[in-house]
Amino acid sequence: MAGLIAPVARLIDELNRLPGVGRKTAQRLAYHVLRAPADEARALAAALVAVKEEVAYCSVCCNITEAGVDPCAICADPRRDAARICVVEEPLDVLAIERTGEFRGRYHVLHGAISPIDGIGPDRLRVSELLARVRTGGVEEVILATNPNLEGEATAMYLADQLGAAVPIVSRIARGLPVGGDLEYADDVTLIRSFQGRRQVERG
Amino acid sequence: MAGLIAPVARLIDELNRLPGVGRKTAQRLAYHVLRAPADEARALAAALVAVKEEVAYCSVCCNITEAGVDPCAICADPRRDAARICVVEEPLDVLAIERTGEFRGRYHVLHGAISPIDGIGPDRLRVSELLARVRTGGVEEVILATNPNLEGEATAMYLADQLGAAVPIVSRIARGLPVGGDLEYADDVTLIRSFQGRRQVERG
Repeated sequence: MAGLIAPVARLIDELNRLPGVGRKTAQRLAYHVLRAPADEARALAAALVAVKEEVAYCSVCCNITEAGVDPCAICADPRRDAARICVVEEPLDVLAIERTGEFRGRYHVLHGAISPIDGIGPDRLRVSELLARVRTGGVEEVILATNPNLEGEATAMYLADQLGAAVPIVSRIARGLPVGGDLEYADDVTLIRSFQGRRQVERG
Repeated sequence: MAGLIAPVARLIDELNRLPGVGRKTAQRLAYHVLRAPADEARALAAALVAVKEEVAYCSVCCNITEAGVDPCAICADPRRDAARICVVEEPLDVLAIERTGEFRGRYHVLHGAISPIDGIGPDRLRVSELLARVRTGGVEEVILATNPNLEGEATAMYLADQLGAAVPIVSRIARGLPVGGDLEYADDVTLIRSFQGRRQVERG
């Protein structure tokens, strides 16, 4: 296209490959980079390369870790309860849970969820690593914290089945009304779940 | 934050500096890069660096051009009418107009618009280059195609004033209802403009 020079066209194409970045957004970002100081573009470029070169996977929990740091900081932390393993789909989920400060056990990252429609079976996930980990003993509870959607539920059910008697407790995070949410606007499935998951109120 | 390793944190920070990319989006993009093939990350990094190194500005129209290609492809094209100059704010605007195929003249890119609130006066734009270009003669019409917003209108008025008698015709692109738009939902200013800009219908 006239007016679109090669280096800019190439950058637009590359940005366009990122998830959620359409053609228009890619153009806007590319022209922002053009206007921005060269240092800013170079810093982003360096960070992109570094993330591929300096990131490895923890041999215990399969979460990302800095290259050379294996097991990862969480798995190596003696203050973290090794008897409790929280299973999540993605490294971002670990981040979200860590932010709450609620969980002091360890993690296992599956790197996805079972999705027959996308051709993703258990063999494509880090399931065998989890089972091996549990079989070495010392694990009292596996908390299934996969997403509360179709794929996440299927994955949780599959794992609960596979874990069987290898671990005393297998639990699933609660599904219910989000805090600050409004009952009136809740979808039916969430509402049903929040009834099914109701707990007796302790009284004095 | 626990779970957030240094190279990933750095990439999130850098992505977060892009316009319209919030913290959550930056996280999502960073983890996408982590999962993506290393080649994809490297290609994006290379494109970012290249765009700063291989892009220059045309000494005639101030639009971006490939380094070493000066004047730019449009200014160097003898089929483009040198007597008609379309003034736009940004290189992206050139792209948008070129896409229509409607305009066969040349461009002048201001690289911004007058915005007193942001401290951007005419001296920060490529205004003197435009005036010098027009004064060398041969220009019959300058089409002011700055954005139809406050800054764009102010810039157009300023330029119309500055161009004065140096060019026979100074025109402004039409403002009115967008094609496919709905009169009922048009804002008042647009509706007023579309009445002010009405044209007599030719009848046989």
